[in-house]
Parts: sequence; structure tokens; C-alpha cells
Amino acid sequence: MDTESLRQLLEALQAGQASVDDVVQRLRHMPFEDLGFASLDHHRSLRCGYGEVIFCQGKTVEQIRLIFARLAEQGHNVLATRAWEEAFKAVAADFPDAQWNALARTISLARGPQADPVGHVAIVAAGTSDLPVAEEARVTAEGMGARVTTHYDVGVAGLHRLLAQAGELRNAKAVVAVAGMEGALASVVGGLVASPVIAVPTSVGYGASFAGVAPLLTMLNSCAAGVSVVNIDNGFGGGYIAAVINGQCAGAE
Amino acid sequence: MDTESLRQLLEALQAGQASVDDVVQRLRHMPFEDLGFASLDHHRSLRCGYGEVIFCQGKTVEQIRLIFARLAEQGHNVLATRAWEEAFKAVAADFPDAQWNALARTISLARGPQADPVGHVAIVAAGTSDLPVAEEARVTAEGMGARVTTHYDVGVAGLHRLLAQAGELRNAKAVVAVAGMEGALASVVGGLVASPVIAVPTSVGYGASFAGVAPLLTMLNSCAAGVSVVNIDNGFGGGYIAAVINGQCAGAE
Amino acid sequence: MDTESLRQLLEALQAGQASVDDVVQRLRHMPFEDLGFASLDHHRSLRCGYGEVIFCQGKTVEQIRLIFARLAEQGHNVLATRAWEEAFKAVAADFPDAQWNALARTISLARGPQADPVGHVAIVAAGTSDLPVAEEARVTAEGMGARVTTHYDVGVAGLHRLLAQAGELRNAKAVVAVAGMEGALASVVGGLVASPVIAVPTSVGYGASFAGVAPLLTMLNSCAAGVSVVNIDNGFGGGYIAAVINGQCAGAE
Amino acid sequence: MDTESLRQLLEALQAGQASVDDVVQRLRHMPFEDLGFASLDHHRSLRCGYGEVIFCQGKTVEQIRLIFARLAEQGHNVLATRAWEEAFKAVAADFPDAQWNALARTISLARGPQADPVGHVAIVAAGTSDLPVAEEARVTAEGMGARVTTHYDVGVAGLHRLLAQAGELRNAKAVVAVAGMEGALASVVGGLVASPVIAVPTSVGYGASFAGVAPLLTMLNSCAAGVSVVNIDNGFGGGYIAAVINGQCAGAE
Amino acid sequence: MDTESLRQLLEALQAGQASVDDVVQRLRHMPFEDLGFASLDHHRSLRCGYGEVIFCQGKTVEQIRLIFARLAEQGHNVLATRAWEEAFKAVAADFPDAQWNALARTISLARGPQADPVGHVAIVAAGTSDLPVAEEARVTAEGMGARVTTHYDVGVAGLHRLLAQAGELRNAKAVVAVAGMEGALASVVGGLVASPVIAVPTSVGYGASFAGVAPLLTMLNSCAAGVSVVNIDNGFGGGYIAAVINGQCAGAE
Amino acid sequence: MDTESLRQLLEALQAGQASVDDVVQRLRHMPFEDLGFASLDHHRSLRCGYGEVIFCQGKTVEQIRLIFARLAEQGHNVLATRAWEEAFKAVAADFPDAQWNALARTISLARGPQADPVGHVAIVAAGTSDLPVAEEARVTAEGMGARVTTHYDVGVAGLHRLLAQAGELRNAKAVVAVAGMEGALASVVGGLVASPVIAVPTSVGYGASFAGVAPLLTMLNSCAAGVSVVNIDNGFGGGYIAAVINGQCAGAE
Amino acid sequence: MDTESLRQLLEALQAGQASVDDVVQRLRHMPFEDLGFASLDHHRSLRCGYGEVIFCQGKTVEQIRLIFARLAEQGHNVLATRAWEEAFKAVAADFPDAQWNALARTISLARGPQADPVGHVAIVAAGTSDLPVAEEARVTAEGMGARVTTHYDVGVAGLHRLLAQAGELRNAKAVVAVAGMEGALASVVGGLVASPVIAVPTSVGYGASFAGVAPLLTMLNSCAAGVSVVNIDNGFGGGYIAAVINGQCAGAE
Amino acid sequence: MDTESLRQLLEALQAGQASVDDVVQRLRHMPFEDLGFASLDHHRSLRCGYGEVIFCQGKTVEQIRLIFARLAEQGHNVLATRAWEEAFKAVAADFPDAQWNALARTISLARGPQADPVGHVAIVAAGTSDLPVAEEARVTAEGMGARVTTHYDVGVAGLHRLLAQAGELRNAKAVVAVAGMEGALASVVGGLVASPVIAVPTSVGYGASFAGVAPLLTMLNSCAAGVSVVNIDNGFGGGYIAAVINGQCAGAE
Repeated sequence: MDTESLRQLLEALQAGQASVDDVVQRLRHMPFEDLGFASLDHHRSLRCGYGEVIFCQGKTVEQIRLIFARLAEQGHNVLATRAWEEAFKAVAADFPDAQWNALARTISLARGPQADPVGHVAIVAAGTSDLPVAEEARVTAEGMGARVTTHYDVGVAGLHRLLAQAGELRNAKAVVAVAGMEGALASVVGGLVASPVIAVPTSVGYGASFAGVAPLLTMLNSCAAGVSVVNIDNGFGGGYIAAVINGQCAGAE
Repeated sequence: MDTESLRQLLEALQAGQASVDDVVQRLRHMPFEDLGFASLDHHRSLRCGYGEVIFCQGKTVEQIRLIFARLAEQGHNVLATRAWEEAFKAVAADFPDAQWNALARTISLARGPQADPVGHVAIVAAGTSDLPVAEEARVTAEGMGARVTTHYDVGVAGLHRLLAQAGELRNAKAVVAVAGMEGALASVVGGLVASPVIAVPTSVGYGASFAGVAPLLTMLNSCAAGVSVVNIDNGFGGGYIAAVINGQCAGAE
Repeated sequence: MDTESLRQLLEALQAGQASVDDVVQRLRHMPFEDLGFASLDHHRSLRCGYGEVIFCQGKTVEQIRLIFARLAEQGHNVLATRAWEEAFKAVAADFPDAQWNALARTISLARGPQADPVGHVAIVAAGTSDLPVAEEARVTAEGMGARVTTHYDVGVAGLHRLLAQAGELRNAKAVVAVAGMEGALASVVGGLVASPVIAVPTSVGYGASFAGVAPLLTMLNSCAAGVSVVNIDNGFGGGYIAAVINGQCAGAE
Repeated sequence: MDTESLRQLLEALQAGQASVDDVVQRLRHMPFEDLGFASLDHHRSLRCGYGEVIFCQGKTVEQIRLIFARLAEQGHNVLATRAWEEAFKAVAADFPDAQWNALARTISLARGPQADPVGHVAIVAAGTSDLPVAEEARVTAEGMGARVTTHYDVGVAGLHRLLAQAGELRNAKAVVAVAGMEGALASVVGGLVASPVIAVPTSVGYGASFAGVAPLLTMLNSCAAGVSVVNIDNGFGGGYIAAVINGQCAGAE
Repeated sequence: MDTESLRQLLEALQAGQASVDDVVQRLRHMPFEDLGFASLDHHRSLRCGYGEVIFCQGKTVEQIRLIFARLAEQGHNVLATRAWEEAFKAVAADFPDAQWNALARTISLARGPQADPVGHVAIVAAGTSDLPVAEEARVTAEGMGARVTTHYDVGVAGLHRLLAQAGELRNAKAVVAVAGMEGALASVVGGLVASPVIAVPTSVGYGASFAGVAPLLTMLNSCAAGVSVVNIDNGFGGGYIAAVINGQCAGAE
Repeated sequence: MDTESLRQLLEALQAGQASVDDVVQRLRHMPFEDLGFASLDHHRSLRCGYGEVIFCQGKTVEQIRLIFARLAEQGHNVLATRAWEEAFKAVAADFPDAQWNALARTISLARGPQADPVGHVAIVAAGTSDLPVAEEARVTAEGMGARVTTHYDVGVAGLHRLLAQAGELRNAKAVVAVAGMEGALASVVGGLVASPVIAVPTSVGYGASFAGVAPLLTMLNSCAAGVSVVNIDNGFGGGYIAAVINGQCAGAE
Repeated sequence: MDTESLRQLLEALQAGQASVDDVVQRLRHMPFEDLGFASLDHHRSLRCGYGEVIFCQGKTVEQIRLIFARLAEQGHNVLATRAWEEAFKAVAADFPDAQWNALARTISLARGPQADPVGHVAIVAAGTSDLPVAEEARVTAEGMGARVTTHYDVGVAGLHRLLAQAGELRNAKAVVAVAGMEGALASVVGGLVASPVIAVPTSVGYGASFAGVAPLLTMLNSCAAGVSVVNIDNGFGGGYIAAVINGQCAGAE
Repeated sequence: MDTESLRQLLEALQAGQASVDDVVQRLRHMPFEDLGFASLDHHRSLRCGYGEVIFCQGKTVEQIRLIFARLAEQGHNVLATRAWEEAFKAVAADFPDAQWNALARTISLARGPQADPVGHVAIVAAGTSDLPVAEEARVTAEGMGARVTTHYDVGVAGLHRLLAQAGELRNAKAVVAVAGMEGALASVVGGLVASPVIAVPTSVGYGASFAGVAPLLTMLNSCAAGVSVVNIDNGFGGGYIAAVINGQCAGAE
């Protein structure tokens, strides 16, 4: 319909019934939404590798199944985060090649030819309890085409374990630092590498970590320049940003 | 320039060098920002009575003077909030008819013919210390064309003072309830009237009011339906919303 | 009318049909609301369409059933919010025409002739997870006689979806903006429309949304004038205020 | 042993082997704890009516049963708060005359002759959901010998209901005001009566009540002098203090 | 008395000396409190000893001077809290017998015959820095007719100093416990006495006292029953409540 | 490999193909992580008595079993905290001499000859509900070789109970003070003893203890010098630090 | 000295008094800090363009002058943030070519040949009051070699202003989004571009922005993937990270 | 007087007018405070080296001068913290040998023979801005007889600086770790040493450090066992505890 009125306007111009000035004037005041700016998001998704990501928390299994199917049918890779096994089974009934990562709680589906991973994203995690978040970051970054190395259980209380990885961390295009408790890992990593560090606080810890507030504040106040922060337990966000940075650099190589 | 490329596109159509389909396609993918959607804000300001409002806090006197002048020259009424005397003097040097309200800390300038105030906005304040915020609400609402009545020093500790005003409050199209300390005024007023109550918490009080957090929470949790809340000490916001509601109803009468 | 009964009482005294003691006694024990305060609640409910609303959370099924029955028997429309299926079944046993909205978790019962909806309240929601709150707002506003349009899944990360609705939003008498996560929707909507925006933060989001604190603060700090805020997840409050504003304007047309 | 060394010291004095000055000097520096100051608490309990009160939360049923039995055997009245039915049944197996108040979640046992209740404590509650806390206050105050009147469902959104009780409230020696949501009840009651108001915030409400923080702050910031506050949901504390005040006054009559 | 004037009015009507219209008119404009609500404030002030108290913070010197004069002229004792020397001088120019307490920051004025102090209020303070708040409590309680004893510098880190006062504290009708830092004083005092303890947190301390939040929480969570709490630094509130309790008991003796 | 390159470098020196200066220079710039600094942690564990401690919360039973086995096989004493019965049973299947402390929720296993306990750590707890945390501290300190005395149920509301223990507390090398609610115990103990007090706040209490925030703040603000604080409910941390202090002093005797 | 012992060890090897195995063993257990790992930071600074950055806040003018001189003498570019005019004057006395940016409050000094700016960093700011922070970001990024475009006063309340810049923003390698009040700008920008968005909350706003907490939470909860956050008012951090990302990509081109 | 009654009791015993049993009985029930338990504090101060410490903040210069003089005259060493130059001058007029430490803001006075410092306390500070707090710790610990080494400007962003000090830190009996911003220093130090770490958060940092809350939480949540925490900016507390631990160990050597 909107397209129709636009079309009529242009036909009037074509037919000499309207001047260019008239049409410019009309277009200028035509509510822009009538033109259908779908390209906005397309532009974005084309460059990032995922058409859309499904945040499952708070959705029903049926809703997840339906959204998943719609996205998959458009030929996109699909990623669902914060999922659970029942949701996976519903999706897998439709798409037997969907992958379930129990630790990361993700469902992923590859569509079309898969390119070789590029660049280097390093994911560092302080403790065993931080692994679900770290793995969510890994699945996300890999799904977006990044080559990922993981460096787990390297908390700052045993500094030598982290220092032993410093060489490899320095080669990464972006480092995702995942830590709960006091979250000091991000600062120490930030002092060891020159590339951007995306810090992901986790909700792991004793009472006064306040479900992730303590490491969140630690990371925001990092004395090491180069550290930026995403939401508590948001492994997806950390992996996404790292993959975007990695992709930009890799594309430029 | 953007207009230029649009014009060229249309001229190509006019000249038969492009089909309607071509142009629709091109327009559909042309970034909408190139079309200049200035009308958005115009629409808004025309209906509300103030072209723009200057929030002076954090601006220099010279910045305030310049912005004020630019707005005034467009023929709009101008309101500057959170101002101070020195800022007023700078403005008054340019516009001798600018008004200074020392209590509300506002500078206002009327332009064009002033309509008679319409409708009825009631502004209720708990204590003497809340008056700067209440007056900011009053100046704002009056500047937007509302008839305003004020009901000051009617805190709930002396309930009879408030009850004595209940009749008039019930006649208002919107009530602005301004209170610090525990902010219970909003709930009590909310229970007395049927029109919307805009609650404005103030930063007045002992230590555990936490500079307005206590009345803010009180008002958000009001057991009386019909109470919505704006920011701490934001008399402008309260007056603005009340005036918008009042204007909508008055315009409809 | 109240004055009338007072007058009759005094005339009885004047006429010698009542003693001074009688009148003092009558005045003293006359339900004070009869002196001007009686109409308080009646006045309010008559204009708003709901006699009273039952907030079910923290009540037993039996308590809900009893309160519902008492209100229904007075001939009022009844709305119960924050209900659950078992509560609905208990109510439905008494009132088979009671309506259950599973998404909004409301029980509603219409009594007497239902008027055509008037005016226009627009309800905007950012994501699928915000729908229970948005639906509670819709049920509330519709129950109070408003014509409601809903605009769901229009979060600001995909701005074009929201902009596509801007035209219709501008026609509403009041807009309810429901959003969790960062709650930016309210500010963007506030910048698009001239009518009052009632912002409802929801408790949807990652850890640092702190169960709705993040969008609550976002909305209180909105840079767009015209936005006021209700409690977290308080869809009822948002719908109620919007319907009151809508009703005032509609009544005035 | 400690008594022994004291005894030896005194015998030395008796035997003329030590002077009074010596003994005074020795006593002055003898660690006081060796003298056994058990009377401290007795003094307190004798005046208050309860030997000790059992806070059941976080204790096992068996622990509750044992503590209850020990106190009961000393001939005291016993009160257990924050109990549950299973705990009551264990206690009742030992003490068939123990009383269970399901709403207040208390177990109480009277021992010895029960005096007639004295004085007047008024307990005011805003909403139905506040009743468990209000009832805990009532049971506590009655157990401590106070005559108690209750005034429930008198929230400030329907002010006339509260005002209708004002006369009786003014007769009380102490008023306990129990309210959740925004907790404005305490301020309004504080403005109506001259006796002390003990405010008890409850954890009832929407999200931004933060489990009782909102009414807690409201009550601490009350604009009415005469209002003091106890912990969230601490009906026991409110009833206890009111009963102490009431007892002091009644004793003096 | 109020009833009397009502009676006279009605008798005038009965006697034909007034018309029904006259009486309705008089009733309508008679301060409504005369109809039942009048006694509210009067009743309160008569029993408490202060007509009204002026909270100076946030008021101008001129406002303070005017309010002070108005209250003094009604023959009430007057108390102004949170004052400063300049404000006192302005008041003293009008009332040379006004008293300035530099530590408590209060201005007080006695009017009419002063009764002998009655009962016993004990005020306990932890450290030297808490004295301004403790003194505000003392001035308030004394002004309301209480006999007051003060017990300063008895913080719990040197327990023997507090224990040495326990005997006298146990004789008080009410104890005001003033403490900053960790505020443990209130709990220890609460464990030593049987009368009500009004706890006043102060804003004295290192960073993590958060300007009084730490002692406020300490006091709200006191493990000793019998402790209720007022706002941070609110010495007036503490002294007021203690004096009300004291007065009730003393009046009953 | 890293060792290999180091070896080659040294062999070049040995073979006269490199000078000492060359090797010093190369070593100085060789990334240190290549040298394998495993001795860091060994140093630490050797002095403290536990090879490593397993924080079970957030780990699966299988993970706990595997980590426990790995540590035990290295001949260390092993401690697992925040465990549960099922986890214990899995461990006990492998190590029948593992000990389960149901109150402290710890699994411990002794390996090698056990030395007699040395020194003196005193553990003080306010109430029955604090015992799980206090017991975790005890198990930890004993496992690290300390002689421990426990002093439970000595909250400050009944001060005589605590004072009766003062003599023994003064003999300890370190005192662990465990308390919930308002946490005043730490300050009072800090005023009674000269040795360091490690304060452990617990999450026991009414609403406004905010799951341990209130006692945490109390302890951080302690007016008694000598009090330091660990995380909420962190009995392990308290016992560990006390045992380290105790061990240092005992070793020096 | 440390070097000395290393040297002795190597000389022993050279002299055949020690085997390679001996030396490897000794080196492995030699505390690594004795080797002087200065190269760590060099690596970092060489890649980032600033030797070190001086955070002036909390330092004296003399301290700033001395640190500045020391860095400048090493031939590095120097940047001092959070400076003030007096500090600049002291620095300028030593280095007349130092630059003062009054808005950004930075002192900068270029040393050695300056390369042409590379890549593209876009800095977006919501309001005039956010400019100091935005300018600090610009100075930082430019000093690190980035080509920077600025887009100021594009708050979301007037969306068309922001949309008009969308084209250019999409071309940037990284976008710094600076906003106070509710901070919604970051989310909207995040929805418009595919490159990483570094969000910088500012402390500009009414009371409930809590000095930047509101926009901080908004940004952490952004519904747009690709947004990471730095500390409140940390323009330096935002500019630094953007420049690092930009430099990585540009270097790869 | 109290002594008098005790004396009379003993004289009665001496005179044979009372039995030992009588006197024991009487003493047992005599309120303990009458015996004057001054020895409590003496015991403490004798072991710690400071009679009392004056916390100057919130005291007047004259108060400081008087308290200082009273303590000095008792022959104790005196320490005044949080002082300022004017206060020092007043003290120095009385005691010319008083020492002023401008950075630590302390006044100290040595009395009697000064022993050689013993043991080893290490004080570690992250940045230049943390020095006032670190110096307060140093002055305190040295005044209590500890040998102190300081290790300043060793923040974790440049890890090599800290690691270079690890050897010396491991030799200390106690380490005080002072840090603002994110406070990660405490965790890293805690992982390097086996002795107790007393962490002192400082109020240095950007907005989201919330005046020291961020490092406070970091330190409380330290993943390294052995770290306990004192109040924000409480250098005195950190130095005091470290010196107590150091003294205990040294005394035992």
C-alpha cells in the first residue's frame, strides 16, 4: 500500500503530472516509515554472520521452536542462547543437524557453506564455575567465524598459570576475560596484552559478590586501559564483540 | 546534496531514463536519513507550546545566553530551568522582557500573542523546602498554557490541611504532587482524586532520604492507582506532563 | 446532596423536631464521608470503570474468590491482576462468564452494559518477554473503556520497526511503553510523540538489570520530556493511568 | 573455682591476713566475669513477661522442640515466631496446650496465672497481605499482657477508612503501624495520634519496593514526629516495643 | 470546647438568631477540624509541649525568623532544629530570651510557666563526634518536660565505660542510643535495659559507613528486642519519642 | 620445548658459542612464562597445610570427586567446603576415611602423620543459626593444625554470656567472630581482646540485614581497632586467616 | 645483584663447574622477579602510541610536572587527563609546545614525527553537557593516531538528528557513544552500526541518575549486541579502546 | 561511694558481723559496674603500644589539643589520625617534639624509651593517589614497634613491578595491601605470599568506584585465601592489625 502510493507519485512524475520539485517535497514529508527500511538490519546481519540470535530465557519452548524455524528457513546461521535441553529437543525435531552445547546452554545451526575460521579470539576464564559463561562466548565467537583459543582456570590467585598463557594471549585480536568472585582477572590480562579486552563478570561467588556486582565494578574500574565490560553472565555479548573486532581486523588483512 | 541525488533520480524518471520500478527500488534502499526528517520535532513542539527548554545545569553562562537567543529569535516561547541569577542577567541584557523566578530558578520569555490559560493543573507541595521544585512545575505548566492552582505546605502529618483542599484538587485535570522526606503525599492525593497524579520526589530530608531516593521509592510503590513518577527534583518534568494532559483535555472540550 | 441532608437536619432543629443534642450527636457520628468525604471512593470508581481491582499476589485462592464475589455482586466490573489458573477456576465456578487471560494473568468480569471503547491508548513493548506486562496494561485499559492498539517487539536495537509505527503512536491520547533490559524504548517513544508516555519497566534481562532497576532508572532519567514512570512490572498501573488520561480527553470531545 | 578464690580472699581478710584495702584492691582488678552476672537477663525478662522468644527461622524442628521444652520447664510463658506447622506439631506433642496461630506463624504457651490485659496497644495494617506481620505483632503484645485492638485494611489510598478509626487510635498507649508497598500509613497515623508509633515495614509489593526497602525508607523519613521503625516484616519487634511502652504506662497508673 | 462552640451555633439557630444558611455557611468555613478533626493537631501539641518544631535546614534566615515569631506569639514553647548562628541572631533580635545551643544547633524559647522535669530519659552516645546529635535529643526531650541524664563516650570498644552506667540506664523510662561508625551501642544497651531504646544512627565514620547507613542497618537488625530506630542524625526524633514515652508513663504515675 | 630452547641457549654458553653477557641479555627478554613457575604455589601450600581447597558450590558431584581424588593422590590433606551429602558419598567411595561434617558442610581427608594442634584460635558465634559458618571456620583452622576453642551463642543482647568467656578469648592468638543480624559481636570482642579479630558476617536475619550486608557493614565500621573482615558466610576464609596467624606465632615460639 | 647471581651461575656453567641440567634446574626455581621483566610494558606501549598516561586527579601540580617531564624526556608522546589550568601552566613552563584542551581537561605533548591519522573512530555525544567527556575521548584517540569524527548533540529525544549521521557512523571502525541522563544513545547507535560501540556513561543528569549510575546500567543492559562499557565519565578509556580497535584494523589494511 | 559500700561490707566481715558466705552472696549480686573494671582497657593498651588513638575527623582543634595532652601526660605514645596542619600546630605548641606527617595526616608523639623495630610488615600500594592511606598505615605500624618496608606504585596493570617485589613480600609477617580503582592488588598479593594480607580499599577512582565501594567489594571477594579487609581509606586499621600480628609473632621468636 505504501509502496503503492509511492508508485502513484512517481507515475505522476513520469506522466508529467507532477514536477520534480513536487515529488521531492512530497517525499520529504512522507512519513519515512512508509518506505520500509528493512535494509538497516540486513546490512548489520550480513556483516556479523548471524541473522538474529534468540535469547531463550523467558520464552516458552514452543516460541523458541517457532522463532528458530523462521530464522533457519531464511538460510541464516541460527544461535539460541540461555536454552535448556527440552528446548533443544523441540528444535532438533525440526532440524536434526542443530547442535546442543550443554555447558554453554546454546543451540546452534549452521546454514550454507561454512568458511574457515579467521583471526584469533582468546577466551580466558578464572575458575571452573565460570565455564558456562566462557563457553557461551566461545560458541558465539566461533559461530561468527572467529578462530578461538580458550584458557580456563587461570585465576589470579595462582598467577603463574595465567602468565604461562601470556604469549598466546598477546597474539589474539581480542581477549574475552570471564571471571566471578572479585574479577581481578580482567585487570591483570589488560596489563599483559595490547589488544582490546572484553570483560564478562559472572555471578559466581560468596555473598558479597552480590550475584556479580563485585566483579562488574572491578572490571569497570580496571586500572588497565583497554578493558571494556558487558553485562553479568553475558558470555554471548563478550563473544559477539570480540568476534566483531576480530572480523574487522581479519577482513582487513 | 542528498536532495540533489534524489532530484537526479527523479529527473532520470522524468526523462524516461529510469522506470518507476527502478526508482521505487532505489528509494527503498536509500538510507532514510538522507531525506531530512526535520518534521519529527516540529510536530512535537508545535503541539506543546515550547520550542525547546534549556536545562542550564552544567552549561556556562555564555552557552545559555547563546542558546536562549537562538531559540528566542525563532519566535518561540523560551524556558530555561536550573538557572541562576548571573545567567539570567546575561539573558536579560539581550531580552529585557525575560522573566526571572528566583524560587523556581527559571528564566522565561513569552513570544507572540499569549492565549488565556486553559483547563486546570493543581500543584500540591508537602513543605516549604519543596517550593523550588513546585514552583518550577508551576512556571512550566503556566508557560505551556495551563491554568494552575497551587496548594503548598499540605504535608500528611497535618492531614486536615490537605483534606481542606480536596474539593479543588478533584477539579483539576492533572495534579502534580511534590514532596521530599517520605513522600507520602502522592499516595494520599492519589486516593483523593480521580485525575492523574504526577509525583515529583524532592531531595529534601534527613540522611536516610538519600537525597530523594526515599520519596522516589514511596511514589513508585504508591498503593493508589493513578500515580506516576518523574525524576528527583524534576519539577519541570512534572509540570510538563501535567500541562500536556491538561492541554489534551482542554483542546477536546 | 450532602449539603442537602445537612440542611434537612438543621431545618429539623429549627423546626423544633430535633434537639441540639440530637444534632450534635448526628453530626458527630455521621460517617464523616457523608460530609463531603463520602463520595471519595465512589466518585473515583464511577469515573474509572472499575469498582476495585484485586491484586492477587499474596492472597489465597479462597480470599480471591470471596473478594471477587463481593465486588461482582455490587454490580461493578471486576479485575483481578497477578492471578493464576487455580484462582481463576475458583472464580469461574461462581461466575462462568469471568475471563482468563493467561498471558496477562488477569481475571476480568464485565457487568452491566458495555460501552464502545473510546479514544486511543497505544501500548508499545520492546520484546517478547515483556508481553505479560504489556498485556496486563492492555486488559486494564480496555476494561476501563479505552480503545487500545498494541505495538509489540519494537525494541530500539531495530529502530525501523518502531519508526514504522510512529504515525499511529502519534494519534494516541496516551502511550504505555513497556520495556526491560535497558528500557531505552521509553525515551525514543517520548521523542516521537506529543502525548504523555507512561513508562513501565520490566524485570526482564541479564544480571545487571537488577530485576528491573536498570530500565526503571533509564525511564526516570529519560531525556525526553513527557515520560513518567510506574513500578517495575506494573502493567496494571501503566494501563490504568493511560486509560484515565484517555477517558478525560475522550469525555471532553 | 572462681568462687573459691574469692572465698579464700575473704577468709584471709576474716583471719586478719589481709587488710580491707588489700581486698578492695584485689577485687577491683579481679576479672568481673568470674563473679557470674547471671542476674542481668533475669532482671530484663521479669519485667517483660517472656523468658525468651524463639526465632524459629533457620532452626530445625528438633532444635525448636528442645529449646521450647527447656524454656517451658522453667515456668515461663513461651513464644516461638517464624514457626511452621510441622514445628508446632512437634511442640504440641510435648505441650498439648500450646497454641498455633497459622496466620502469625507463632506457637505460644501460657504458664502460671494469666493476668487481665492492661492498657491499650493499637495495631494498624494497610492491606490484607500485611496481616501475617500484624498478627505476629498482636500475638506478641497480647502475650506480654497488653490489651490489643486491631485495625486492618486501612491503607491511605482510601483515607476515610483510616480516619474512621482515628478516635480509637488516639486512646492507645502505643500504635503499631504495619504496611508494605509505599508504607505511607505510618506517617498518616503519626499525624493523627500523640502516642508513639512503631512502624513495621513489610515486604509486600511490586518490584521497586525491593522486598520492603521502600516502606522502610518511607517510615524512617516520616514527616510526622513520633514514628520509630523496626526491621522489615518484624511484627514481633513492633509488638514487643509497643507492649513494653504500654506496660510501663499501665504499671504507673 | 469545640463541641461548645458548635452547640452555641446550633442554639442560635434554634433560637432563631441564625438562619439555616448561616449555619451551613459557618459549618462549611469553620476549620473543618472543629467538626471532629479539629482536635487533631491541638490534641497532639497540648500533650507534647511543643506547638510546632521548625526544621531550619533548607529555609532562609528570614523564613525562620517569621515562623518562629508566629509560633512564639501563640504562647507556645518553640524549638528550632538544624539552625545556625546567623539564624539564631535574627530570632534573638525579636526574642532576647531565646536560647542558642551551639553543639545541638538548636534555638529554643520557653513560654509560660515551666513545670519541673518529670520521669527519666537517658541519652547514651558512643563517641565525641556523636555529640551534636545527642545534644539535639537532649534539648528536645528537656523542652518536652523530661528529666534527662546523659551518658557520653561509652562506645562498645571500651565496654567497661558503658557497663559502669548500666544501673542508671535501667532506671530510665526510655533510652536514646546515639552512635555512628558501626552503631553496635544500641544492641548492647538494648541487652542491658528493659525500657524502650530509641536508636539514632549518626553519619560519623570511615567510608563504608556510607554517611550513616552502616549504623542504621545495625540498629534495624539489632538482636536485642526493644530497639526501634529513627532517621540518620535525627536527634530530634529520638528525643521526641523518648519524651513522649516518658511523659505517658510519668503522667500515669 | 621451552625448556629446550633454554637448554640450547645454555649449551651454546657451555660450548663457548655465546658469552655470559649474551645469555643474561637473552634471559632478560625471554618471556618469563616459558620457565614454568610452578614453585610459586608450592611455597604457599607447604606453609599453610592444605594443598588446595575445593569450593564445591557450582561444581557437579563428579567434578568434586575427580578433583578430590587428584589432590588426595598427591599426598595432601584435602578440604572441600560448601559440599553436600551426595558429594560426600561419592568421595567416600574412593576414600573411606574421608570425614563429613554435616553442620559445616565440609569433607576432609587427612594424609600423612598428623601433628599435634598448636597455638590457640578462638571461634565466637552469636547465635545458633550462625553455627554452620562457625563450624566451617573450625574445621578449616583445625585442618591447618590450630588448636581451636569454640564459644557459641554469646550474642551481645545477653552480654554476660560473652563476658564470661573473655578470659579465654584473651589467650587466643586470633579470634574468629561469626555473627549475623547486626553483627555487633565483632566490635565487642574487638574491645575485649588484644589479638587480631577476623570478623565473618553471616546471612542470618530479618529483611533489612539484606542477606548479610548489615553485619558486613557493621564489622567494616567497627569502632574497635584490630577487626578485619571477610566475605559473608565465608567461614573458611575466617578460619584460614586465623590459622595462618596462629601458625606464624606458634612457629616462632 | 640479581643479575650478579645469574651471572655467577652462568659463569659456573661456562667454567664447567655446573651442568646444563643444574642451571636449568636452578633457573626454574629462581624467583622470576629477579630477572627484571621490563619488556612486558614496552611491548604494550610500543603498539599503542602513548608511553604512559597521567591521571592527574588526586595528584599535586608538582607531581604532575615531574611525571610529565620524566615521560617526555623518554621521547614518548605524553597525555595527561583530568588536569586543570594551573597544572598545565606548570607543565608548559617546561614544555612550551604542550597543548591544553580546556574542555577535555587534557595536556598533551607530541614527540617525534607524527604519522597521518588512520582508520576512523566516530565519537557520538547526547548533549552539550557530555562534551568534556567526549572531547577527552577525542583527544585520546587522536593522540593514538586515529582519524576521528565527532557527532555531538544527537540525543535520542530528537531521533532525526542521530539518524542523519547514521551513514557516517556505519563507516567507522569503532564508535564511542557518550551519554548521561538515561544513556539510551548507546543502544540506538548499537542498533544502527555493525562495528563495536564503546559506551561511556556520564554523570550528567537529575537526581536519580545517581551521578552516572543510570546510564551505566542502561549501557550494560543494552539490547543491542556489540555494546561494551567503560567507567562513568571515563572518556579516556572510551577513546583508548576505540583507538586500539581502529589501529588493529588499520594496521591490517 | 561504691567503693565505700564495698569497704563497709568487708569491714563487717573483718569485724565478724558477716560470714564469708554472706559476703560472697552479696558480691555476687552487687552490680558489677560498681567495682570499676578499668583493667580491661589497660590490658589491651599495654600489649599494643598505643594508649589510645585520636580519630581527629569531626573534632575541633581545641578538642584534639586537650585529648592529646591528657594522653601524653599519662606517659603513652600518642597517635592522632585524620589530622590537619592547624591541629598539629596547636598540639606542637604543647609538645614541641610532636611529629607531623603531611602525607599521612598524622600527629605522633613518642614517650619513654623507644625499642628497636621488630619483625617485618610490608605495605604495598597500587598508585600514587593511594599514598596518604598507605602512609597512615606505615606511621601506625611503626609507632607500634614494627619494622616496615614500603612497596609503592605496584598496581597490577604493570605486573612486573609487583612481581619484582615478591621475594621481599614473602618475608613479611603481614602485608598491608592498599588500592583504589578496582583493588585487584590485594588478590594478586594474596596469591604471592603465605602470610596474612590486610586489604585497605581507597576512595581513589572514576565514578563507578563509588568512593571505594568497588575495591572494597573486590577485596572482600578475593579469590585468594588469606585476605581480610578493613574500612575504606582506613590506613590506620590496616597498619594496626598488621602490627598486632607482627608483634605476636615477633614476641614469640
